[in-house]
Amino acid sequence: MDIKQEVLQKAQSAFAAAAALRVAPDEQRNAALLAMAAKIRASVDEIKAANQLDMKAGAEMGLSSAMLDRLKLTDSRIEDMAVGLDQVAEFDDPIGEVLSETVRPNGLNIQRISVPIGVIGIVYESRPNVTVDSAGLCIKSGNASLLRGGKEAVNSNICLAKMFAAACAEAGLPQGCVEIIESTDRQGVQEMIRMDEYVSLIVPRGGHGLIRTVVENASVPVLKHDRGLCNIYVDASCDIQRAVPCINNAKTQRPGTCNAVENLWVHKDNIAALKAIVSDLQASGVEVRGTEAVCAVCEGVNPATEEDFDTEYLDMIISVDIVDSAEDAIANIQKYSSGHSEAVFTDDAAVARKFLSEIDSACLYHNASTRFTDGGQFGMGAEIGISTNRLHARGPVGIRELTTYKYIGVGDYLSRK
Amino acid sequence: MDIKQEVLQKAQSAFAAAAALRVAPDEQRNAALLAMAAKIRASVDEIKAANQLDMKAGAEMGLSSAMLDRLKLTDSRIEDMAVGLDQVAEFDDPIGEVLSETVRPNGLNIQRISVPIGVIGIVYESRPNVTVDSAGLCIKSGNASLLRGGKEAVNSNICLAKMFAAACAEAGLPQGCVEIIESTDRQGVQEMIRMDEYVSLIVPRGGHGLIRTVVENASVPVLKHDRGLCNIYVDASCDIQRAVPCINNAKTQRPGTCNAVENLWVHKDNIAALKAIVSDLQASGVEVRGTEAVCAVCEGVNPATEEDFDTEYLDMIISVDIVDSAEDAIANIQKYSSGHSEAVFTDDAAVARKFLSEIDSACLYHNASTRFTDGGQFGMGAEIGISTNRLHARGPVGIRELTTYKYIGVGDYLSRK
Repeated sequence: MDIKQEVLQKAQSAFAAAAALRVAPDEQRNAALLAMAAKIRASVDEIKAANQLDMKAGAEMGLSSAMLDRLKLTDSRIEDMAVGLDQVAEFDDPIGEVLSETVRPNGLNIQRISVPIGVIGIVYESRPNVTVDSAGLCIKSGNASLLRGGKEAVNSNICLAKMFAAACAEAGLPQGCVEIIESTDRQGVQEMIRMDEYVSLIVPRGGHGLIRTVVENASVPVLKHDRGLCNIYVDASCDIQRAVPCINNAKTQRPGTCNAVENLWVHKDNIAALKAIVSDLQASGVEVRGTEAVCAVCEGVNPATEEDFDTEYLDMIISVDIVDSAEDAIANIQKYSSGHSEAVFTDDAAVARKFLSEIDSACLYHNASTRFTDGGQFGMGAEIGISTNRLHARGPVGIRELTTYKYIGVGDYLSRK
Repeated sequence: MDIKQEVLQKAQSAFAAAAALRVAPDEQRNAALLAMAAKIRASVDEIKAANQLDMKAGAEMGLSSAMLDRLKLTDSRIEDMAVGLDQVAEFDDPIGEVLSETVRPNGLNIQRISVPIGVIGIVYESRPNVTVDSAGLCIKSGNASLLRGGKEAVNSNICLAKMFAAACAEAGLPQGCVEIIESTDRQGVQEMIRMDEYVSLIVPRGGHGLIRTVVENASVPVLKHDRGLCNIYVDASCDIQRAVPCINNAKTQRPGTCNAVENLWVHKDNIAALKAIVSDLQASGVEVRGTEAVCAVCEGVNPATEEDFDTEYLDMIISVDIVDSAEDAIANIQKYSSGHSEAVFTDDAAVARKFLSEIDSACLYHNASTRFTDGGQFGMGAEIGISTNRLHARGPVGIRELTTYKYIGVGDYLSRK
C-alpha cells in the first residue's frame, strides 16, 4: 500500500470512529482509558520487546545517549503511562457542558455546548509515551487521534497504538479511535496535513523546522507547539533576595523545556540584582552571556551576540542585557519573544500592570517563574502541549482545549421575523 | 510598487498599529468608530462619487443587474453604515474581561483574560459596506484590519477604508489600524494569506472557490465562512400546521443567505406534513425538486438528482426526500450538510435529543427556522460572518469571537517546586 493510501485509509477510519466517539458517554470513554491502562500493565514485556527493536536500531543509527535515553521504556516509565491514563479517566467530562445560555425575546433558547473537535492528527518525535498520553487525552475529550510518531520510536509507537485501538474495541468503541501511520516517510506528514476533509486539527510537537513545514503546508488547522523563547525582566524595584531563586528556578529546574527562561533583562538602576542573579546562576553551572554593559559589571560573563538573544538554548545558558526602562525591556521582549511565557519581577504595581497588559504572550507572570506554564501547574491535569497559537487555545492545552462548541436553539415552532 | 511590496508594507503597518490598539482603552476605540460614522455622514457625496466609478466600470464589465444592485451605495445604505458603527460603539468592551480565575495551592493566582487577536485579514467580494462593517468590528475588538475587497468595488472600498484610517488618526490611533490593499490582482490574496509573521487571522468571505483557495494556500490561520447547505428534518410526530410556516420561513424569507434551507427530509409516516409543506412552498413560488418517492405523492414536483442534494441553491429551489427514520435523516444530513445549520421539527423529545446530539453542525434547532443563525438573532449585535470552522469560533462571529485570551499569573516571588 502506498503512503497516500495508508494515510487516507486511516484518516477515514478515524473520521468514522470520531462520529461514534462524539456520542459516546463519559463512562465508555473512561472504560477505554482504563482498559488501555490494564493492557499496558499486562504487556510490559511485549512493550519492552518492541522498544528494544527501536533501541537497537537507534544505537546502529548512532543516536546520542541523550536521545537513546528519551527513547527507552523502562518498567517505571511504562507504569507512568498507565498511571497517566488512570488520572485522565478521573477528570470531569469536558463534553456536553453548557458554556453559555440565553433566551431571546422571541423565546428562542440558545445554548452553547462543548463538543469534541473530531479527528486530531498528532505529529511528534522520539518519546513513545507521547503516543499513549496524546491518544488518552483525545479519547477523554471525545476525539479520534491519527498519530504519526518519529522514525526512532516506530516499533514502540505501533505496539502502543495498536494496544490502544484494541482497548477501545474492548470498551465498545471503534478501533479507529486510535490510528497510527506506520510509514515513517516524510510524505506521510505531508499527506495527513492536507486531509482537511477528515482531519480537523493537526498538533505538531517537535522542532521549529517541523512546525514551519506543517504551518506552511497544512490545509488542516494547526495548533502549534513552537519554540519557547521566554524572557524575564527584573525591574528597578524588586526584592532581590527573593527574586534570585525564582530566576534560578526559571533557568535551571529543567533547562530543556520550553518554559525555561532564555533571555534576562535587568533595569540599569538595579545592578545589585544583576550581580546577585548572575553569580547565583553561575554558581549553579549556568553559562551567562552578556552584552558589553553586563560584562562591564559582572565577572565571568561571556560576550553575547545579537543572535544569542534570538536563540532558544534549551540548555544551561542565558543571555543577559541591561535596559534603561520598563518600556525598553518590553520592546526587547516583544522583539525576541516567541509569545510563550515572560515574567516581570517588580514591587512597582504600575510597572507590573504595564508589563502584563502590553506584552502579547500566551502566559505572563508577575513575581513568579516562567516554569509555571504547564497543564499540571495550571490545574488542568495532563496537557497535550503548550500552544503558541494565537487562536483557539493559547498556553497549556488540556482536555478542555481539545473541545470546540456548537449552538443548540430550541423554539416553539419559531420563524424569524 | 509591486504587489508583494504593497501587501508586505500594509501588513507591517497594520501589525504596528495592532500593538497600539491592543492597549487602547474602549473609549478610544469607540471614538474612532464615532469619528468614522461622522465622516461617513459628512461625505455622502464623496462616497457616492467613488461608488459611481465602480458602477460605471461594472456596467461596462457587464455585471448583472443583481450584482450592480449589491454594489450600489444609496443615501440610505450609506446612512446604514454609519448607524452600524454607532451601534458597534455601544457594545460592551470585549477586551480585558476575566474569563476565568483560579488560585493554585501554592498561591499562584491565574487569570484568563480576553485580548485582541492582532491583525485580521479580510478577503471579501462585492458589497462595499463590508469594508466599514468589518473594520468597525475589528476596531471595537482591538484588532487592526487588512482589507482586500473585490475588484468591482475597488473605488468605493478604497474611499471608505481611507476615511476609516483618517478617523482612527483623529481618535489618536495609528492610521494603520485600517489598511486596504489597493491592487486587485489575485496575487495580493496569495501574498496576504502567507504573511503569518504579521497577520494572525484570515477571514475569507465569498464563494466556495475563494474559500478553498485560501484554506489550501494560507499559512495564516483561517476563519472560514463557507457554504450553508442547511437541512431540515420533519419527523413523524410534529405539529404540521405550525411547522409549515417555519419551513416556509427557512426557505423563502431570504433565499440568498447561507442560513436558508436547501434540503428537506420528511419521515415516511408523515406524508400529510410533506404534502402540506410542498404545496405551501409552491404557493410561495418555490421550485420543489423531489426524489421519485416524493414525486409519487406530491404534485408539481420536479425530479431531483443526487447532485441537487449537494447544491447550495441560494435561490427559490428546495430538494426534498422521504426517509424511513430519524436515523436515516441524520445519516443523510451528515452526508450532505456543510456543517452550518440544521433543524428538526418534532414533538418527540427523544428524536429531538438524538438529532441535536448526533449532528455535528455549528447550529442546530429544534422547532425553529434555520434562519436564526445570525449574530443579531443570537444577541451578539453585528457579526463579521458565520463560521463553518470547527475551531476557535463556530456559527455567528461577533466581536467576542474576534478576541483570544492570555493567562496572567501573579505570585509572591514564586518558584516551581
